[in-house]
Amino acid sequence: MTTTLTIRSAAGTYPVVIGPGILSEVGSRLRAQTGDPDGGVFIVTDDTVHALGYADVVQQSCTRAGYAATVTVVPPRDESKSLEMANTLYDRMLDAGIRRNGVVLAVGGGVVGDLAGFVAATYLRGIRFAQIPTTLLAHDSSLGGKVGVNLSRGKNLVGAFHPPIAVWYDVQTLASLPEREWRGGMTEVIKHALIGDKTLFAELAATPMDRYPGDDAAERLVARAAAVKIAVVEADERESGQRMWLNVGHTVGHAVEQLSHYQLNHGEAIAMGLCVEAQLALDLGLADTETRDQISFVLVRHGLPTVPPAFDFTEVVRVLNLDKKHRSNEWTFVLPVRIGRVDIVHGVTETALHKAWQQVLTGEENQK
Amino acid sequence: MTTTLTIRSAAGTYPVVIGPGILSEVGSRLRAQTGDPDGGVFIVTDDTVHALGYADVVQQSCTRAGYAATVTVVPPRDESKSLEMANTLYDRMLDAGIRRNGVVLAVGGGVVGDLAGFVAATYLRGIRFAQIPTTLLAHDSSLGGKVGVNLSRGKNLVGAFHPPIAVWYDVQTLASLPEREWRGGMTEVIKHALIGDKTLFAELAATPMDRYPGDDAAERLVARAAAVKIAVVEADERESGQRMWLNVGHTVGHAVEQLSHYQLNHGEAIAMGLCVEAQLALDLGLADTETRDQISFVLVRHGLPTVPPAFDFTEVVRVLNLDKKHRSNEWTFVLPVRIGRVDIVHGVTETALHKAWQQVLTGEENQK
Repeated sequence: MTTTLTIRSAAGTYPVVIGPGILSEVGSRLRAQTGDPDGGVFIVTDDTVHALGYADVVQQSCTRAGYAATVTVVPPRDESKSLEMANTLYDRMLDAGIRRNGVVLAVGGGVVGDLAGFVAATYLRGIRFAQIPTTLLAHDSSLGGKVGVNLSRGKNLVGAFHPPIAVWYDVQTLASLPEREWRGGMTEVIKHALIGDKTLFAELAATPMDRYPGDDAAERLVARAAAVKIAVVEADERESGQRMWLNVGHTVGHAVEQLSHYQLNHGEAIAMGLCVEAQLALDLGLADTETRDQISFVLVRHGLPTVPPAFDFTEVVRVLNLDKKHRSNEWTFVLPVRIGRVDIVHGVTETALHKAWQQVLTGEENQK
Repeated sequence: MTTTLTIRSAAGTYPVVIGPGILSEVGSRLRAQTGDPDGGVFIVTDDTVHALGYADVVQQSCTRAGYAATVTVVPPRDESKSLEMANTLYDRMLDAGIRRNGVVLAVGGGVVGDLAGFVAATYLRGIRFAQIPTTLLAHDSSLGGKVGVNLSRGKNLVGAFHPPIAVWYDVQTLASLPEREWRGGMTEVIKHALIGDKTLFAELAATPMDRYPGDDAAERLVARAAAVKIAVVEADERESGQRMWLNVGHTVGHAVEQLSHYQLNHGEAIAMGLCVEAQLALDLGLADTETRDQISFVLVRHGLPTVPPAFDFTEVVRVLNLDKKHRSNEWTFVLPVRIGRVDIVHGVTETALHKAWQQVLTGEENQK
């Protein structure tokens, strides 16, 4: 069984196919969707995913479907999302003879998807690419068309909007995820439930999915979280309004992730960010205590951390002020106001954030 | 007096304003078009143009209009169109505090426009930019939204389609162009006449504009050439068909430019390319002798070279095969079939090109 969702974007509509066994169908699906195999296929993956054989399965399926397909492997770290690595990939693509009608396939998690997508967006002024996620976290990053690389001064400072021609999501790849990676991915599932699926949120609170739940349950879980994201990005592809909702937990979370020098994974940092931002919403009178506590509860139930390391708060402020989403001298946050609803809040002050940060760190508010 | 043309693109419609004295109006025009001056203005120029004071005039006009505006100067060579230079500009933009609602202004020729446009297309996943051309050649490069940088293995291999929000073209800047630069720019004017304005072509053959003709005549000249380009790119922004017309002369011309290590300027190389491709069209029975001779005649009347250096033809073939516009094992050319009309021709063989190349080099056909 597979579930197929579709995303309407300014550049056209593309399918999101979720289910078991899709990896070996990529070649035939690509051929059915695009026709002519001329132009070549360029598969990008990372060492970890490559060792599991997934890119090879994709390559073989492409070869069977008549494509000349090459695999390029990058280190499995966020540092691979760099202009230098993009430059290396351009060279490999020229070596492989990839033409304007060629296709880039990203087989892996968010790092591979963002990097390969950026390269596809800029090589020969943009060629097609498809996302083949192999992590739970990538149910988020693979949808919506955002691609990019990091600069030394911050994440995703360089990039593009370049929607894929398809997302082919083989949930069986998720069975091989280390538990920590699975749980980190659950943060974004929980975030999507918090934004737009309160039933899913309640189900996860009652019956946590803190490990791979089997093919059918994984397919349903991914499809429901993806459906929330799709609805949001369809309403606002270029992030002028509603798409900002997806940043709930991410303003603080990104700062925490960066200050941890990526020793915390993305999901862990965002879990902490959600808790600080829920406290901030409570302090500002936008959310009630129960909402804050439910958010913390469901994260804890999934083995996720809820209290950030005791970073120097002035460092947190410094990183926040580098964030591309902030204009001038005010901070804009997306805060949870109740389960199933988040709001964009302008004019958040350093003082208010400092208070919420301290409360989460010391657990002070909880003891009242 | 100014002439205003408009270009419809997938990303919206933008004005092309041509006339004298526009540099000092950039700030007020920008403010009138975009409103809020928050977000900052980042002006990119090159050393040559900077020495003429044009970027300073633009900066002052932006300051008067309420913008925080900084000027960054790059070397005036094609080598500035690199990922390394883009990386440097990203850093400067972060230093200057340029936000998502900021604007990049490209003050200069094609190198500055392509580089600054690429940086604008990718910084924070894309911010607005405007073209402020100061060369005649840039009447071509500033229109149509193509931006990009070079790799060591070829020109414009990395880039994007990122239309400007406006093109502000102060023709008085053209009065300061060295004669060789003016003539090089005339190649693209002649090319546009060849593609779509046979009256302009006849006028240029009768009365060559081999130097700056004064403000009014320059405004009319630029506007007429721009009108041809605009009609073509509106019909086919993404270069799937008609936009390829603009490549007449460029298939051979780019190879010549590259093999000369850019000792020939773009216009000179394209002039040679036009002559080889006109001979090719004649050989293939697509054009008559008069068409070929008219093309050569008008170029010579403008002091442009019509015979390429005697490069090893196997090197020409090697460079052509790297060109991103060619698929698989066939070459596609855009060839002049008569004045005012070019055609896309598939399946051009190495043998046919070699014959035309030799004929132009030796002048053999001319003596028949």
